[in-house]
Amino acid sequence: MDLFGLLHLDELSHGLANLSMFPYFDIAHYIVSIMALREQPGALEVSRVSPLACWFSSMLFCFGGAVLSGIMLAEPVVAPLSNSTSILLASITWYLVFYCPMDLVYCSAALLPLRLVLSAMKEVTRTWKVLGGVIQAHGKFKDSLLVMIANGWAKGAGGGLISNFEQLVRGVWKPETNELLKMSYPTKITLIGAVLFALQQTHYLPLQTHHLMLIYTVFTVVNKSRMMLTGSSASPFAVIESAVYKTLFTGSSPYAALTDETKNRCIDHGATNGATSTAGTKEIGENGAAVKKTPVSPVKGQSGSLKAKEESENADKTDCKKKK
Amino acid sequence: MDLFGLLHLDELSHGLANLSMFPYFDIAHYIVSIMALREQPGALEVSRVSPLACWFSSMLFCFGGAVLSGIMLAEPVVAPLSNSTSILLASITWYLVFYCPMDLVYCSAALLPLRLVLSAMKEVTRTWKVLGGVIQAHGKFKDSLLVMIANGWAKGAGGGLISNFEQLVRGVWKPETNELLKMSYPTKITLIGAVLFALQQTHYLPLQTHHLMLIYTVFTVVNKSRMMLTGSSASPFAVIESAVYKTLFTGSSPYAALTDETKNRCIDHGATNGATSTAGTKEIGENGAAVKKTPVSPVKGQSGSLKAKEESENADKTDCKKKK
Amino acid sequence: MDLFGLLHLDELSHGLANLSMFPYFDIAHYIVSIMALREQPGALEVSRVSPLACWFSSMLFCFGGAVLSGIMLAEPVVAPLSNSTSILLASITWYLVFYCPMDLVYCSAALLPLRLVLSAMKEVTRTWKVLGGVIQAHGKFKDSLLVMIANGWAKGAGGGLISNFEQLVRGVWKPETNELLKMSYPTKITLIGAVLFALQQTHYLPLQTHHLMLIYTVFTVVNKSRMMLTGSSASPFAVIESAVYKTLFTGSSPYAALTDETKNRCIDHGATNGATSTAGTKEIGENGAAVKKTPVSPVKGQSGSLKAKEESENADKTDCKKKK
Repeated sequence: MDLFGLLHLDELSHGLANLSMFPYFDIAHYIVSIMALREQPGALEVSRVSPLACWFSSMLFCFGGAVLSGIMLAEPVVAPLSNSTSILLASITWYLVFYCPMDLVYCSAALLPLRLVLSAMKEVTRTWKVLGGVIQAHGKFKDSLLVMIANGWAKGAGGGLISNFEQLVRGVWKPETNELLKMSYPTKITLIGAVLFALQQTHYLPLQTHHLMLIYTVFTVVNKSRMMLTGSSASPFAVIESAVYKTLFTGSSPYAALTDETKNRCIDHGATNGATSTAGTKEIGENGAAVKKTPVSPVKGQSGSLKAKEESENADKTDCKKKK
Repeated sequence: MDLFGLLHLDELSHGLANLSMFPYFDIAHYIVSIMALREQPGALEVSRVSPLACWFSSMLFCFGGAVLSGIMLAEPVVAPLSNSTSILLASITWYLVFYCPMDLVYCSAALLPLRLVLSAMKEVTRTWKVLGGVIQAHGKFKDSLLVMIANGWAKGAGGGLISNFEQLVRGVWKPETNELLKMSYPTKITLIGAVLFALQQTHYLPLQTHHLMLIYTVFTVVNKSRMMLTGSSASPFAVIESAVYKTLFTGSSPYAALTDETKNRCIDHGATNGATSTAGTKEIGENGAAVKKTPVSPVKGQSGSLKAKEESENADKTDCKKKK
Repeated sequence: MDLFGLLHLDELSHGLANLSMFPYFDIAHYIVSIMALREQPGALEVSRVSPLACWFSSMLFCFGGAVLSGIMLAEPVVAPLSNSTSILLASITWYLVFYCPMDLVYCSAALLPLRLVLSAMKEVTRTWKVLGGVIQAHGKFKDSLLVMIANGWAKGAGGGLISNFEQLVRGVWKPETNELLKMSYPTKITLIGAVLFALQQTHYLPLQTHHLMLIYTVFTVVNKSRMMLTGSSASPFAVIESAVYKTLFTGSSPYAALTDETKNRCIDHGATNGATSTAGTKEIGENGAAVKKTPVSPVKGQSGSLKAKEESENADKTDCKKKK
């Protein structure tokens, strides 16, 4: 492409494409992922009660994409375990993040400048994972765009997509929330990446692989850094999403009134349900004791783990500061 | 077989066996399946909040059999995605059923005569799916009757059997109900079909494939039409089931008294549980606010989604009429 | 090894290694497993309401290891169904344990001497399953220690590890408990066995296969018998576990205080939750009606199904005696 040649970006993109993820970028991915797990509500308690469940959860955060892709393509889901070096690195990271004396590792990595660098490095690994997934599916299902997108998405955002089952390992069950019902930013950006790389691989998108890798990587890194620095969780696609949504999915007029209402509250399956539930809790609370009905209240469900995960990456946590 | 020759049914059965499911019967299957999803409680709200979750749920309704069979036989579960034409047809159907302006498509298809024809056509596809599953398992596990039955059943009634996980996509979780605990009519008829075709393929049943296809198809279509026209959801096997049940599964006398009782109430795991739960709700209700304890009340669980799905196919929904 | 030759144990270990599990040991495994299922809360009711769900649950108890291993290695999960003889034996056992007239089979097998022998025989099958799993993984993933351990563990303790999903078949859902969060004795001993056999197969443990089989089998059988006779459920590894735990997983001082506390209560995700929940129930109870909030109360969750399963094998149930 001429533009790339003109801007002398060709060499840069070649250099990026030849970059090895192992070990530095992989380690950054493990650190950021396991820190996101640690910041889930209840995760620290699980790490004390059952280190094994905590380790397994961490591995699902780190290798969830490979596991999900394995299920989808009928390849051994234990395959990530066979890569001893990666597992060893991830396990050491897990141990240091959760059990390091004085909590040194977590507190250092949670400092904004370091977290910014680590998160940016993690974003770089996303490009490689999405592309790897797309190419793998391309090899198995010749020219099936949807399979390529699905596998690229699974590889890149696997940890989020299987989060219901990852939570189950830790004894948490939040059926009312999942990444398909309410997509987080990382899942969205990965889906877009999977679509772009699938189009590029099938030559519908007239770009070279390394050029697209450069564009996508720069976009994700810049966007992630911007979100972390401004503390904003606003999606850069909000306008497009809203336009597409309004054009395509509000055609059936009898339900148009419903739409805004449903968007404002948690998917609660019946407004009365949500309303009386809260009222009921309050009523009993006035009797002297609050009743927690399910492990997850509707409100907690809304600002649930996935969002927490996403947000946790945007803000410097104050946990460590308090301790000092 | 002489009887078939005598009744000149040989040609008819050959004609049926050579019938192509694509595209008309497939489309009927998609329309009826996606309408069944739309009639699930909460499905319309999900379609507004997250079109992607709604689309994924629809695909599980349409291709659930292929997905379940893929898991069982360790073949890629994304394989249905690789059939672009089917996915495209199912997606268009999904879009029209959920988002068509004025809700034209759903309201037309919900009219009894049209729904009757579509449901009958969907029943025809069942024969092909069950037979396909049996033959596929026959090729992989030579002469293993149970695997053939399991795979034929999975292919033909997959959407129902994985309904717990399909609901999870929409944020609904009803662990107290599944197709094994309380089989719906479509699941039952598919199981019978799978047994018959497995016996026929292993030559225990002295019939030719196309003859059995004719018999089974006629039976399912006639039975379905009868159920829709009379509005009855009575299983045609109720008498046999009851006899088998009484003969085989009530032998252990100490529990005989338990049996009738347990059949009458929801599987509630402890009578006291169910009783006090209802009492508790009422008690609090009198205090001014009803408490909805779990996303699904025991009563709702009983008349839950699977039954709703089954019933929804038997009766002409009044939704559209109200709007007029 | 000289010690084995010296003690004339070489022939004994060869004899053990050549022992066929089929049919006597397999039948003992089926009987003990299905009795454990029958002793789960609610299982008897399910057996009356839906014999099919009960049968499917029983098969998961008997062949759960093969199913889990199939999922992990991307091999057909229906494979156990293709072994007609095993399925037939397990099905007959299931029928006799649940539906035998006068409940003769269950009551006889529940007598301590017979149960002791059956449980000891079941422990013997564990050795074969773990070794089988380790060897199978060794063949597929050359020298990957972790995959070998994982597959050996899955094969030997599969029924426990997938218990959440086995319960789902019976309409029970207990997300707050799983074998990773709170390992039962059988799961622990299987994990240790998987580690030992994996080390032995990769020659890190300088023992011959049949010698390790003898040592491991004797250890599990003796330990199981001791636990059943003394009624103790104390793990023989409690001291080692405690030492390892204190050394490795309490490094991060700010949470040290948390540790003991969290171990004493159910993993409840918030002390307040657990506390107020109990208080709330009591409060309402005083109003005249107890409220059962979720299908499983936190207390029941703690002494939940997996522990019940384990304990049920240690004590002679008094069920049958009452009836006499």
